[in-house]
Amino acid sequence: MAHVLGQNQYGKAETRVVRIYRDSTRHEIKDLNVSVALSGDLDDVHLTGSNANCLPTDTTKNTVYAFAKEHGIESAEAFGIHLARHFVDNNEPIHRARIRIEEYTWDRIRTPDSSARFIGSEEVGHSFVRNGGEIRTAQITYDGSRFEVITGLKELTVMNSTNSEFWGYIKDKYTTLKEAYDRILATQVTARWAHSWSGEETQPNWERSYTHVRRHLLEAFAETYSYSLQQTLHAMGSRVLNNRAEIDEVRLELPNKHHFLVDLEPFGLKNNNEVYFAADRPYGLIEGTVHREGVVPVIPVA
Amino acid sequence: MAHVLGQNQYGKAETRVVRIYRDSTRHEIKDLNVSVALSGDLDDVHLTGSNANCLPTDTTKNTVYAFAKEHGIESAEAFGIHLARHFVDNNEPIHRARIRIEEYTWDRIRTPDSSARFIGSEEVGHSFVRNGGEIRTAQITYDGSRFEVITGLKELTVMNSTNSEFWGYIKDKYTTLKEAYDRILATQVTARWAHSWSGEETQPNWERSYTHVRRHLLEAFAETYSYSLQQTLHAMGSRVLNNRAEIDEVRLELPNKHHFLVDLEPFGLKNNNEVYFAADRPYGLIEGTVHREGVVPVIPVA
Amino acid sequence: MAHVLGQNQYGKAETRVVRIYRDSTRHEIKDLNVSVALSGDLDDVHLTGSNANCLPTDTTKNTVYAFAKEHGIESAEAFGIHLARHFVDNNEPIHRARIRIEEYTWDRIRTPDSSARFIGSEEVGHSFVRNGGEIRTAQITYDGSRFEVITGLKELTVMNSTNSEFWGYIKDKYTTLKEAYDRILATQVTARWAHSWSGEETQPNWERSYTHVRRHLLEAFAETYSYSLQQTLHAMGSRVLNNRAEIDEVRLELPNKHHFLVDLEPFGLKNNNEVYFAADRPYGLIEGTVHREGVVPVIPVA
Amino acid sequence: MAHVLGQNQYGKAETRVVRIYRDSTRHEIKDLNVSVALSGDLDDVHLTGSNANCLPTDTTKNTVYAFAKEHGIESAEAFGIHLARHFVDNNEPIHRARIRIEEYTWDRIRTPDSSARFIGSEEVGHSFVRNGGEIRTAQITYDGSRFEVITGLKELTVMNSTNSEFWGYIKDKYTTLKEAYDRILATQVTARWAHSWSGEETQPNWERSYTHVRRHLLEAFAETYSYSLQQTLHAMGSRVLNNRAEIDEVRLELPNKHHFLVDLEPFGLKNNNEVYFAADRPYGLIEGTVHREGVVPVIPVA
Repeated sequence: MAHVLGQNQYGKAETRVVRIYRDSTRHEIKDLNVSVALSGDLDDVHLTGSNANCLPTDTTKNTVYAFAKEHGIESAEAFGIHLARHFVDNNEPIHRARIRIEEYTWDRIRTPDSSARFIGSEEVGHSFVRNGGEIRTAQITYDGSRFEVITGLKELTVMNSTNSEFWGYIKDKYTTLKEAYDRILATQVTARWAHSWSGEETQPNWERSYTHVRRHLLEAFAETYSYSLQQTLHAMGSRVLNNRAEIDEVRLELPNKHHFLVDLEPFGLKNNNEVYFAADRPYGLIEGTVHREGVVPVIPVA
Repeated sequence: MAHVLGQNQYGKAETRVVRIYRDSTRHEIKDLNVSVALSGDLDDVHLTGSNANCLPTDTTKNTVYAFAKEHGIESAEAFGIHLARHFVDNNEPIHRARIRIEEYTWDRIRTPDSSARFIGSEEVGHSFVRNGGEIRTAQITYDGSRFEVITGLKELTVMNSTNSEFWGYIKDKYTTLKEAYDRILATQVTARWAHSWSGEETQPNWERSYTHVRRHLLEAFAETYSYSLQQTLHAMGSRVLNNRAEIDEVRLELPNKHHFLVDLEPFGLKNNNEVYFAADRPYGLIEGTVHREGVVPVIPVA
Repeated sequence: MAHVLGQNQYGKAETRVVRIYRDSTRHEIKDLNVSVALSGDLDDVHLTGSNANCLPTDTTKNTVYAFAKEHGIESAEAFGIHLARHFVDNNEPIHRARIRIEEYTWDRIRTPDSSARFIGSEEVGHSFVRNGGEIRTAQITYDGSRFEVITGLKELTVMNSTNSEFWGYIKDKYTTLKEAYDRILATQVTARWAHSWSGEETQPNWERSYTHVRRHLLEAFAETYSYSLQQTLHAMGSRVLNNRAEIDEVRLELPNKHHFLVDLEPFGLKNNNEVYFAADRPYGLIEGTVHREGVVPVIPVA
Repeated sequence: MAHVLGQNQYGKAETRVVRIYRDSTRHEIKDLNVSVALSGDLDDVHLTGSNANCLPTDTTKNTVYAFAKEHGIESAEAFGIHLARHFVDNNEPIHRARIRIEEYTWDRIRTPDSSARFIGSEEVGHSFVRNGGEIRTAQITYDGSRFEVITGLKELTVMNSTNSEFWGYIKDKYTTLKEAYDRILATQVTARWAHSWSGEETQPNWERSYTHVRRHLLEAFAETYSYSLQQTLHAMGSRVLNNRAEIDEVRLELPNKHHFLVDLEPFGLKNNNEVYFAADRPYGLIEGTVHREGVVPVIPVA
């Protein structure tokens, strides 16, 4: 039976670029990890050994660095849009570019005395501490006519120490789980959300949009009295769609980071929901999409 | 604008089960990491807080352990087929099950003397050393009528110390890469291949199929004189399809684990392709599918 | 030649305990990873197979959980002191206990509306987000008469985007490094500091001490105009000793997280200290101790 | 109170060097990760900002690459001895060098047909697959007069599926562990052993020594009927000392990779030591040294 070349793509993954803005003594940082994937008219590269249509991955890396200087990095999304448009519009064999970006954020170090150059009362203009919490993500895809922008975050770990129950589920012959009427609910949020913008002239304010979506996710997690992690997931996604008109679709992956009550009775102690064992594996994994009616979801299942 | 619940799934991820067979003094081990994802009639779970249709993830974990005893673990694929069928056929609200399995393999420890219980001349019947190389993977999906089985491997690192060139590519204003006529080609293979079997009575011999596909991948890597990693990828995928009738589609993800020649001229030394710096990031990432004509590819893009 | 049993120790590593305080609707969390290592009269355990002197590691794990209830977790240090004293004072064969603790911190989620139970204006009393930055560490050792307490932190990543130079170093035949008069200085701080307290009746205020030491480390990093990472290291250690009388010794491990200026000249661009490649490996690693005169250092070299 | 600079060291960590030997069509590979730590007359570097005594870490990296060409890499130990001697003997301010090396091994890919260049019947001369199992380690320290060489391995995971018991231990009020008369014993071996060689003219055959020590460790693990992991540890260390005259001291770190029997009774099934849950954390951690009488141990406690 004959066989054919199917979907294929290539590019440089994980180019780590740090851009410093030194326009004043109050420096600014953008710290990104950029992965490029290109596809198009690449059959010969696979089949004949001709690389005539191949833009080297090394060149895509160089382009990331050059664009950090030429265009600056206003936001991960805007930077990715520049890159995606460049690769497709300037290389005839390249028909589609997908740029994935991780962004790491830094906070300013503050000091109480006057031995460093200050901005306002306390900040040191050139000293930063890495915000070790969640990582911001962006994926920009461009096929020569339309952009698709998916923003997200990952490794955001949250916990409710009450207001979570789980009961009334199916019981079969393999069920041993006891119903819970006051449990800890903890998860490490991976969220992705798709923007309705597809390349029209004015781009959204990506930074402001991110700040608000993140806030809505956190607030919905905190304010939902939960009967399942699925219900919390739906509340988080809905909250975003209800509040942010620029977003069409939200997908969440929520591992249930189990906190098991330790049995202290053998030691003559009563555990009033106070002492927990934080388990690693296995863990429940809850995934789901909420999207506007009539919109075709674009965020792929992991 | 109204919004709706889209694709969703849930289950227990990373249940670590080890099954020992003690039928003789020559023990056998199966060591798996099993992840279950279920979907179906789960709107109420997300929307109303009712868990009446929810089979707890804890139960899916228990089922993994119970099935390891009841059915044994003949192969990752056969074990996943048992599980997927069980969840869909025995729970009316569950319409689809996807089982993902990682398998870790163990080799036997051999000893030269007679102080342990031997099998044949040298092996100790109950002592094993973990084969730290590649991890075997399997994904079984069942929707109540059809199975889809995707076998694979990951973390298989290979290198050719010659027989690799790269030249004749596009040069644009951001290109600085020098053409190479004898370079190291190293990659860490992630491969997945789809079986044509979809649930007919007799299952393939999964273990034998795996052994042969793995061998063809390695041989194709070793024997291909390469003008690009893309070309090597295609050779590897084609080799499998040409030799294994039970496979319809192969997808490969090949990070180019760059080995850069170190410039020794400042030290008065000539580097005749002898001393390399093994780089971490960034790396080229080459991905592609080869499939039989007329077959609709099922392996998702990562 | 005869041989003997030398230094040995055992215990349960990485017991993950989470303690919730629910005394009001404003819950409090302590989240620890506790590792116990015991030594003493354990020759028979190694040599004869008798476990008569062996307190099982499983029991040391249970003790961690029970003590979280019985004594609470006021601070990692106070908790470790309770555990170390217990193991040595209550088990005749155990002569020495070393407790190592990692502490993960959580911030409160704040919300703007009134749908959750508030404390003051904004905080939700039971909702937390994990502070993903540095990990706090503590090591408590007790030999039946004296305590040794070493507090620390790790994974605290900091950067100065200016005020760092490096020049005037040894040049030998293998030197190619160019002198730098304005470079980025970035590092991931691992710090450990020893307290003078050794078991007298009143324990220091461990939480306040930690807060201040951490602040001095950050301020010294930000305020030091640096001619080498060694000089910055010394400034950080000295600042702590100059300001915190309860600390006798500070040891720092500072990997130089290199940020290399990207050469943009091939693209007709000038890089005015704006675009950097953040490298993974190799990295400079600078380690050193600063201690009070006359004090014998106790913090081991990694 | 005055304070002083204590122990300090610096150097380039994790230089990844791959050396290919192409003397015939049967290539040879040495793949190392080299970390250099230097100490000496470095007070000024820390205190005054003068780098006159500082050999840059970048130069130590260059030296690793240059020596890979100039001296080749016969073994990790011989290569580290070259480096340590060079840094101390050629830089007056450097009084001590410690070289740590990880070595990754590669196996040859074999193929059944004749399309590649063969050596003997089956091996491809230039194609390799990374042996993903244990990592070989070496640490060489030199102070200008004496060498100290510590060889080792890590990430070697082994399991006995029987011949392990654990009972007769201390029972206190926190003990819930049940005695075990037939359990799985699994561990991930970290071993280090010190050679008696300290710089005399002829070096041992490092490669052969390693092969034999590794074999004795595995055989002792397999052949020991175990009443505790401590007892197994002692048997492993003793076996090496009894068989290898060039070794003076062995230190082992053996995490007890717990395999807990799953309770299948709720499902009406009997678990005859067949189905186990492989746990991640917490784990017992057993550490100990065995050394020749009269020898002062040099391997530090982790």
